[in-house]
Amino acid sequence: MSRPLAFRPVVPLAAIGALLAHTALAAGGGSGAIDMLPVLEALALILVLARLGGALFERFRLPAVLGELAAGIVIGNLGLVGFHGFDALRTLPVVEAMAQLGVLFLLFQVGLESDVAKMAAVGMSATLVAVLGVVVPMLLGLGVSQGFLGGHHVLSHWFVGATLAATSVGITARVLGDLGRSASAEGRIILGAAVIDDVLGLIVLAVVTGLIQAADQGRTFDTAGLLIIVGKAVGFLVVALVVGRWLSRVTFRIAARLPGEGLLLSFALAFCFFVSFLAGRAGLAPIVGAFAAGLVLEDVQVQAPREQDGMKRELHQLMQPLAGFLVPVFFVLMGMGVDLRVFGQTGVLGFAAALTLAAIVGKQICALGALGPGVDRLAVGLGMIPRGEVGLIFASIGRTLTIGGERVVDDMVYSAVVVMVAVTTLVTPPLLVWRMRSPRGG
Amino acid sequence: MSRPLAFRPVVPLAAIGALLAHTALAAGGGSGAIDMLPVLEALALILVLARLGGALFERFRLPAVLGELAAGIVIGNLGLVGFHGFDALRTLPVVEAMAQLGVLFLLFQVGLESDVAKMAAVGMSATLVAVLGVVVPMLLGLGVSQGFLGGHHVLSHWFVGATLAATSVGITARVLGDLGRSASAEGRIILGAAVIDDVLGLIVLAVVTGLIQAADQGRTFDTAGLLIIVGKAVGFLVVALVVGRWLSRVTFRIAARLPGEGLLLSFALAFCFFVSFLAGRAGLAPIVGAFAAGLVLEDVQVQAPREQDGMKRELHQLMQPLAGFLVPVFFVLMGMGVDLRVFGQTGVLGFAAALTLAAIVGKQICALGALGPGVDRLAVGLGMIPRGEVGLIFASIGRTLTIGGERVVDDMVYSAVVVMVAVTTLVTPPLLVWRMRSPRGG
Repeated sequence: MSRPLAFRPVVPLAAIGALLAHTALAAGGGSGAIDMLPVLEALALILVLARLGGALFERFRLPAVLGELAAGIVIGNLGLVGFHGFDALRTLPVVEAMAQLGVLFLLFQVGLESDVAKMAAVGMSATLVAVLGVVVPMLLGLGVSQGFLGGHHVLSHWFVGATLAATSVGITARVLGDLGRSASAEGRIILGAAVIDDVLGLIVLAVVTGLIQAADQGRTFDTAGLLIIVGKAVGFLVVALVVGRWLSRVTFRIAARLPGEGLLLSFALAFCFFVSFLAGRAGLAPIVGAFAAGLVLEDVQVQAPREQDGMKRELHQLMQPLAGFLVPVFFVLMGMGVDLRVFGQTGVLGFAAALTLAAIVGKQICALGALGPGVDRLAVGLGMIPRGEVGLIFASIGRTLTIGGERVVDDMVYSAVVVMVAVTTLVTPPLLVWRMRSPRGG
Repeated sequence: MSRPLAFRPVVPLAAIGALLAHTALAAGGGSGAIDMLPVLEALALILVLARLGGALFERFRLPAVLGELAAGIVIGNLGLVGFHGFDALRTLPVVEAMAQLGVLFLLFQVGLESDVAKMAAVGMSATLVAVLGVVVPMLLGLGVSQGFLGGHHVLSHWFVGATLAATSVGITARVLGDLGRSASAEGRIILGAAVIDDVLGLIVLAVVTGLIQAADQGRTFDTAGLLIIVGKAVGFLVVALVVGRWLSRVTFRIAARLPGEGLLLSFALAFCFFVSFLAGRAGLAPIVGAFAAGLVLEDVQVQAPREQDGMKRELHQLMQPLAGFLVPVFFVLMGMGVDLRVFGQTGVLGFAAALTLAAIVGKQICALGALGPGVDRLAVGLGMIPRGEVGLIFASIGRTLTIGGERVVDDMVYSAVVVMVAVTTLVTPPLLVWRMRSPRGG
């Protein structure tokens, strides 16, 4: 009983009476009681199914995120076989809010893991690969969308293109690590490009979303309007990084003098929430703020004085349980958004196949940006193939946008994007293993 | 970038697009979008103020929980000085729900830390001290309540008495640890009694709440009804412990064979949520379930086969960040429920003083239950003084109960309980240090 007390002295005091948080908060908070029982039921179910799905996929050396998504697709489509016991899950605002905190934590972690210095070192090649890797797939996706969905607004096509932009480097990184090739030239280019990719993607999404909202409100759109959106997105990131760096240094210097365990996590979370809030207020997605907050703290930690040694590792470790709890909730809910009935519609599978092909080919072309002799461009191109959460989240956003009364991402597009994500993620590991293990090609 | 991947392979894939969880979920989840911005703002504010309050109190060697409570009282009463900027915090269901998850985590941790075997070892003394420590303060509190609040229903008086029952042993445990006396006879008796105390308290609260609800609905109440409530509470605990132990063993045996990191935490959380849900369905507080779930997992871990070594320590460590995030949210909201204006009413301070006295005297009497030669009964009595979360949560529950149209715990009683908690917690550390360091008395 004494060891854990060192971390959290007040824990054991609670037992008897903490009994009824349920009612307690209704009284303490002043508003009506929340019925926690459906929330508890939903969370228990989601956590177990997400883990089982993830474990099943990992057993076949597939990424866990696909398993979580699959679990969600299963739950979400049980209505097709006449079972509606889980339908209530869709309408629990508390669970939705927790999923949203999950994505914030995910992006915050990505920011924490993005080493700005290492990005600079891989330099030109990574930047070129990243830029081409955003532009080429977008244009190909735009073309596919125009071919299959002729009646849609041109900005909808751009949006479809944008869902192909971002590389999900996690899978590649895992494969490279397993092969012991993370530090190879190809490995560093892929990892570096993926980070730049992320930042470009944030900007692309802000721009396309802004254009669509303007068009939907009937505003004419000129270069000035475009520049304002780009400026706002870039400006927020720059200001967040510069001011945030200063602010967080001051904060953590003060925090370092305060007693009490758990201070680091609380301040880091508060910082993450606050920057996310500011991003939202600036008209950007809160997640942009979470990513920026992670980048800032990564940097502050690296520069931290001696007494804050280990802060970085510590913050990573502290975030693990929080992300492990909430991130799967997000992906299960994402999966629940997939309506399998849509695949019965004419053309959906063809569209999905074309989109997937555009995603794969686009990233092979971007590999031409990998400079220097002896770099295996095919390995780089293969490593850039996987799309993941990013494309899914783009698609989900598109579902909430309308232009001229028409949803930017309808059920057909959403389902096609899910197929594209699944296929690109699934094909990468075997292809990459084959290429990296085979005698070196050109 | 490669190390964290070992824990969570998919993290870096997300960056660009995870942008808009906000909108994304509205689409994925199928219901209306939640405005996360007020939630993010509130969480950032609550986390920072809770930590600053906690750190300030810890600097003066006072328990952090009082600081968190104080932060809540300050935020909640800024309206008195004309500032209403934080009033919106009271009406955010998502924040309230997160606070409720916080209490669940707290009780789950308490369960995890309650070593059933060690409880058995301290044996008779601890049990006697615990039983007397629940009964005597309850009776004294009942008397005080009858004296000051003559017009209230007799069950309201019992409820006030119940708020005095549970010892908040965390503070005592911390002081004993600092003095290196945790393993002393007095230390073991106090810690053991506090655990039994907790279980008794769960039952007392279930009984008193059940009686009040029955009376409020005009049902006549007989011994059979009382026995049903006691039976339900005890029965749930027993069934949860027996069935839960079997269920969790099977589950974790399966889980141990599955690949994937983070499985332990997910299954443990799902188990906690599920048992809490069952408790709620059985008419008990969800927190009873969380406590039972913790007890079960503590036991399973202790009995775990070799490959699950370290599971216990690991689960404790994994729960730290989750509790560190959400538990302070609960206590800040609890503090916000205190209306300082009530202290302007006649008799409140006198009532608070009498209640505090009853709380302190009651635990001195219970120390007579400490058997065996050479046991310092005064040290045991002093160590049992602190009340904490428990009393506060009882009081909050009482606020939501009515009997004959009258709130069981009105603003006056709630505020008096807060004073009682603060005073008993504050006086204990200096008294205990004095007693344990001074030459041994009788």
